[in-house]
Amino acid sequence: MTSIAENQNFKVLFSFFLLVLFFSHTVSVFPKYIDQKKPCKQFSFYYHDIIYDGGDNAANATSAAIVNPPGLGNFKFGKLVIFDDPITMDRNYLSEYVARAQGFYFYDKKLGVNAWICLTLVFNSTEHNGTLNIMGADLMREPTRDIPVVGGTGDFFMARGIATVETDATEGLRYFRLKMDIKLYECY
Amino acid sequence: MTSIAENQNFKVLFSFFLLVLFFSHTVSVFPKYIDQKKPCKQFSFYYHDIIYDGGDNAANATSAAIVNPPGLGNFKFGKLVIFDDPITMDRNYLSEYVARAQGFYFYDKKLGVNAWICLTLVFNSTEHNGTLNIMGADLMREPTRDIPVVGGTGDFFMARGIATVETDATEGLRYFRLKMDIKLYECY
Amino acid sequence: MTSIAENQNFKVLFSFFLLVLFFSHTVSVFPKYIDQKKPCKQFSFYYHDIIYDGGDNAANATSAAIVNPPGLGNFKFGKLVIFDDPITMDRNYLSEYVARAQGFYFYDKKLGVNAWICLTLVFNSTEHNGTLNIMGADLMREPTRDIPVVGGTGDFFMARGIATVETDATEGLRYFRLKMDIKLYECY
Repeated sequence: MTSIAENQNFKVLFSFFLLVLFFSHTVSVFPKYIDQKKPCKQFSFYYHDIIYDGGDNAANATSAAIVNPPGLGNFKFGKLVIFDDPITMDRNYLSEYVARAQGFYFYDKKLGVNAWICLTLVFNSTEHNGTLNIMGADLMREPTRDIPVVGGTGDFFMARGIATVETDATEGLRYFRLKMDIKLYECY
Repeated sequence: MTSIAENQNFKVLFSFFLLVLFFSHTVSVFPKYIDQKKPCKQFSFYYHDIIYDGGDNAANATSAAIVNPPGLGNFKFGKLVIFDDPITMDRNYLSEYVARAQGFYFYDKKLGVNAWICLTLVFNSTEHNGTLNIMGADLMREPTRDIPVVGGTGDFFMARGIATVETDATEGLRYFRLKMDIKLYECY
Repeated sequence: MTSIAENQNFKVLFSFFLLVLFFSHTVSVFPKYIDQKKPCKQFSFYYHDIIYDGGDNAANATSAAIVNPPGLGNFKFGKLVIFDDPITMDRNYLSEYVARAQGFYFYDKKLGVNAWICLTLVFNSTEHNGTLNIMGADLMREPTRDIPVVGGTGDFFMARGIATVETDATEGLRYFRLKMDIKLYECY
């Protein structure tokens, strides 16, 4: 009787083993599971852009257009802006910056306002040290829009995720502020 | 005798365990296995680009150069074009578009035709909702060329893969059409 | 007594099983382990950039600015350069190139020298065939700086990693050379 019981044990265990083997292979064969509701790192901040007007705002300006739009439509299609913008924790652009956002954006819609943006967040503080790359369409007519985080260095080595962007304020053509919520789903 | 058999069982099982443990670790230590022959998502479409000529084609134009080439060589080196191009399922650029391709390309070869492209596919239909980012060299002299898909949002959350691009038609300097075959190898 | 021993065996094994099951799941649930000290592929080379001066260096030039800087600060803020630069194994820019680096960079600092770069390494040799995409802030004041590798094709299918960049030489405004050390942490 004991030997039958042992056999049973053995069979149960063996089935288990096969199951485990199966799973331990499938985790590599099938895409790895990433929980969209649980980022491994998350933080928010404000991005400020003060556009150089070619004249007396050079002291405050953090960005500048490098071309005049080529004249397709009425929404600045083709205007390309290069920036080195401060990132702050609150809405005041004069607050101490926690990072710089270095990159470019351009307008790309003939019949409406729309942009495309690509930037590196450069962190150099006691809290964070490293960079994060964000790139993609900035669908400005949506109240919030997701833009992929495609890479990082330092504290954000090999990171990937999503930046959720919201226009927080605009002041004519001279200033705008975005709220950015960074959610990383790959952290190492 | 049964106890020897048990021992045997135990040893076999234990070896198995070590094997499983070994494997279940290595899947994480070594890069995860992605099958180059089995994308987790795949679809094809056509990309249409009608370049603004500065004059009377504004109604149809979907892209515009923002600079004149600086004159290095005879192949438009440095010409940078920003676009908001329609994506259709068939070759007719007047067909209903299933996505927009928003981004830019530029020519970058002194002694031949070659380009570099970066774009976001913006899907907003009942079938697909989300974005996909594609960037890289567009080696125009190759009949087909692969360009990395480096990120996505929405239905394409955190996606990665390859876009295989083929020039399907060109009409002088005013129009060209690409066939794009998207293969995603990371899907969530 | 043997049945107690068996039970013990069974319990030990079962605990092991649970442990294995736990691990084989966690490798997929938690981010996969990538060893920052052990890239799966690594190689170094030199990148040469000879800027077109608008005149008599067209034969040697490998890059050209497409705009004049808009005049914000004294560090060429907004100057955008498109390039098709040779990659060599040694410091001599006349050596046989092992790849081309196709892409663009721009200067983006009002009060200092700083750049942002995005490029595709195009390999087409017996040793390597494929492409690698590198993008991010090039913090020129740092002796070495890390820039993410965000995608690849061919031999570098779906690759990700870090490019460590070092300014190796500059000759006025006409030439500079970077040493690049590519470390891939995702290889397939």
